Amino acid sequence: MSTSAEPARDRAARTADALAALRAPGADVWVATASADGVPYLVPLSLVWWEEQVVVALESTSPTARNLTASGRARLGVGPTRDVVMLDVVLDRSVDVGADDGLAEAFVAQADWDPRRGHGYVFLVLQPTRVQAWREANEIPGRTLMRDGTWLARSGRPVARTEN
Amino acid sequence: MSTSAEPARDRAARTADALAALRAPGADVWVATASADGVPYLVPLSLVWWEEQVVVALESTSPTARNLTASGRARLGVGPTRDVVMLDVVLDRSVDVGADDGLAEAFVAQADWDPRRGHGYVFLVLQPTRVQAWREANEIPGRTLMRDGTWLARSGRPVARTEN
Repeated sequence: MSTSAEPARDRAARTADALAALRAPGADVWVATASADGVPYLVPLSLVWWEEQVVVALESTSPTARNLTASGRARLGVGPTRDVVMLDVVLDRSVDVGADDGLAEAFVAQADWDPRRGHGYVFLVLQPTRVQAWREANEIPGRTLMRDGTWLARSGRPVARTEN
Repeated sequence: MSTSAEPARDRAARTADALAALRAPGADVWVATASADGVPYLVPLSLVWWEEQVVVALESTSPTARNLTASGRARLGVGPTRDVVMLDVVLDRSVDVGADDGLAEAFVAQADWDPRRGHGYVFLVLQPTRVQAWREANEIPGRTLMRDGTWLARSGRPVARTEN
């Protein structure tokens, strides 16, 4: 909400920065989910960006896994709070950690830990439907980079709607 | 989930670190809420810790304000993802930003911006019911610092339950 001396990035720069954050080795993500009766949940997890999807690994009995499996929805936050990438995602599939070597190897390569060594872990593969990125208040306009699962044209006009 | 060379902090150290994070000038917080039909929402907001409660300022028409007002519940994440303080909170009260000078001054002092200069902002005052803090996997045991609204004795035994 504070003002910033930095000029607002255009959509091309934000998209490039967002993809760099999603691909960063050791990246983490805040995962917000909700139970069917509307109780919010939030945890930080390792983030892997693979084939244009987000992959997280977690215990299949955890609240986040149960919420996501039941509702199929989550909202993700990546980055420090003044340089965020926000993703609305839907659950594409749940994969046993031992069932897909390519997925597991991609996970280990970015996250640098192997959920196959734990007990009861599952990969949840999440399909982004909306992606937004902003730093300070001057970047609230134009923050939407993907809408309805489609990346917006990188030269498009900023969007002025207020959504938070 | 990765292992760490740092030893796990005891409860007294975690509680002191958590309170320092909550009181830090310019602190931000990830606020997870949900609609009545279970759609999760997540945004970063400025965090103010005042009289043992969390105060956020946001537009009264925003999804987060609407969700919190309807459900009375949120889950908050403070800090980088590998040094987190997690708070489950209930809505204590909603206060017009012009209606309580003491609250507004406390907000400005920590957040360094004044929501009274915006349009349609409201303070939401949030009462913590559970507080947890951890850095890496070795701090998952013993992560609960407050339960049912009461800070746990700082010399207590770590709690071994898995809750995430």
